[in-house]
Amino acid sequence: MILLLGATGYVGQQFASELTARSRAFTTLSRAKVDYTRFEVLLKVLRELKPELVINCAGYTGKPNVDACEKHKADTLAGNTLLPLTLAHACAAAAVPWGHVSSGCIFAGAKIRQGGQVRVEKDLTSTALRHLLRTDRSAFSGFTEQDAPNFSFRDPPTSFYSGSKALAEEAVAGVGEGYLWRLRIPFDNRDSARNYLSKVQRYAKVYDNANSVSHLGDFTKACLDLWDRRAPYGTYNVTNSGFTTTREVVELIERMLRPARTFEFWASDEEFYRVAAKTPRSNCLLDTTKLLATGVKMRSVEEALEDSLRHWIPES
Amino acid sequence: MILLLGATGYVGQQFASELTARSRAFTTLSRAKVDYTRFEVLLKVLRELKPELVINCAGYTGKPNVDACEKHKADTLAGNTLLPLTLAHACAAAAVPWGHVSSGCIFAGAKIRQGGQVRVEKDLTSTALRHLLRTDRSAFSGFTEQDAPNFSFRDPPTSFYSGSKALAEEAVAGVGEGYLWRLRIPFDNRDSARNYLSKVQRYAKVYDNANSVSHLGDFTKACLDLWDRRAPYGTYNVTNSGFTTTREVVELIERMLRPARTFEFWASDEEFYRVAAKTPRSNCLLDTTKLLATGVKMRSVEEALEDSLRHWIPES
Repeated sequence: MILLLGATGYVGQQFASELTARSRAFTTLSRAKVDYTRFEVLLKVLRELKPELVINCAGYTGKPNVDACEKHKADTLAGNTLLPLTLAHACAAAAVPWGHVSSGCIFAGAKIRQGGQVRVEKDLTSTALRHLLRTDRSAFSGFTEQDAPNFSFRDPPTSFYSGSKALAEEAVAGVGEGYLWRLRIPFDNRDSARNYLSKVQRYAKVYDNANSVSHLGDFTKACLDLWDRRAPYGTYNVTNSGFTTTREVVELIERMLRPARTFEFWASDEEFYRVAAKTPRSNCLLDTTKLLATGVKMRSVEEALEDSLRHWIPES
Repeated sequence: MILLLGATGYVGQQFASELTARSRAFTTLSRAKVDYTRFEVLLKVLRELKPELVINCAGYTGKPNVDACEKHKADTLAGNTLLPLTLAHACAAAAVPWGHVSSGCIFAGAKIRQGGQVRVEKDLTSTALRHLLRTDRSAFSGFTEQDAPNFSFRDPPTSFYSGSKALAEEAVAGVGEGYLWRLRIPFDNRDSARNYLSKVQRYAKVYDNANSVSHLGDFTKACLDLWDRRAPYGTYNVTNSGFTTTREVVELIERMLRPARTFEFWASDEEFYRVAAKTPRSNCLLDTTKLLATGVKMRSVEEALEDSLRHWIPES
């Protein structure tokens, strides 16, 4: 039996659906009834239930967006850093494996190969790099699980949200037996406030950048596949293969959904951060070689995006 | 046997001295040899050593001062929040009581009784309150262990250091059996960079404010006395009775040490924060009724200050 924490959230609901689809026994905990953020409470639950795996989807993402985490530092740290640490400790004490939904947003930019040299660029929005993105996509590659986060408290600038997620990874890595599954900009075919494809359609203006992204269903499938294959514990970038740019996503939305509105892009980073966003945003590419090497299958970004828009369900 | 963590630091050394003076068996751990910040490492140590109590003096205070914590957020949180949480978890799992050196710097200001009403003032440096401090000291009282921190991430403004300490208190309270011992502006008779009486003498200009303060020897004695009396677990303000102002401390230094220099005060808070300090500082009064009710003795602030200056040992 699998114990699922944070089952009512955006990611947790998808895990519940996927576990149900697989006819896998799972249990959820209501935090209102059982405060699983307390070590001894959680340890008791683990010793009683003896789950094969605990999946933690709980976290604090900030409402309406990540800017809210700058104001709510205690909630951000308690939800994103202290809770996973408490979980890892309790799981270690009870000898139960764990899987924690981490985030790719602890990185900025990409690796760029030019003239036989590979360098890291944190900002992909310069004119030169936007040109390179259009003319030689193969020059870009993502960060691997070996790379240290470069959008974190240890390597600022960062957002408080990203800082709290990176600190959690550092704190729980190697505690007991567990997985750090890095999700990155989730989307699927169901219109919702957390869905990237919904967000792009709702922004007054769109911010063009390059990113790895995770189809939510593909993500949860891959995480469970890693467990079912008993892939080695550790960190995995769990995104669709390849990457996309917001401009490409907009073009796809225009072509497939034929919305009434037209899309405008922020003229510059400066305008975006001055008008629309307070704290820096992570935009980054992740490498999925490690994930794919386990034999777990992932669709390409293009396939997952097109499939989501083809079966698009607008919010009623 | 008592296990002492952070034994080489300013507070840890004093605990080691006091335990030695009491002929109490104690063990220290070198973090370079045994990484006790890792749950499983610490749990193994606790199960092997079976100490009667673990005392945690480790923490990250920032060098040269608390402003450094604003830059080193990961180290600040790892040292001040994640480590005490890990310790509390390991102690709970091993059924070992713990004592954590917390800080009074999670509060700002004092309670003020005027015209039959008690109100909280976070800033005691207004002209009216400075006048009241000189004319009716009894109008001022400190925060009790029942009061929620008001200089914390949940109740800003705060410093990152204070935020990390307050978050630790919230996270570890009630985990296993333990003490939160709140130290506040430590001093004693030995000139050192961490000694309040040294700091006042070294500041180019002095910032006048009212504070509870802890004689370092009195603090460690009181903490160990609490344990020896098996006082109920929980939070204790461990400061000398009463409070002092920087102006009074300067007068005492002038009278007792007769330094060659003269002391100048910052003209205003505004000048202090513009020129000398980056992040807000906690200045506060703490109530020690709970501590004294256990039967533990504490000297008055005046007695402890005068005694320290009477036996002053300048740094060689």
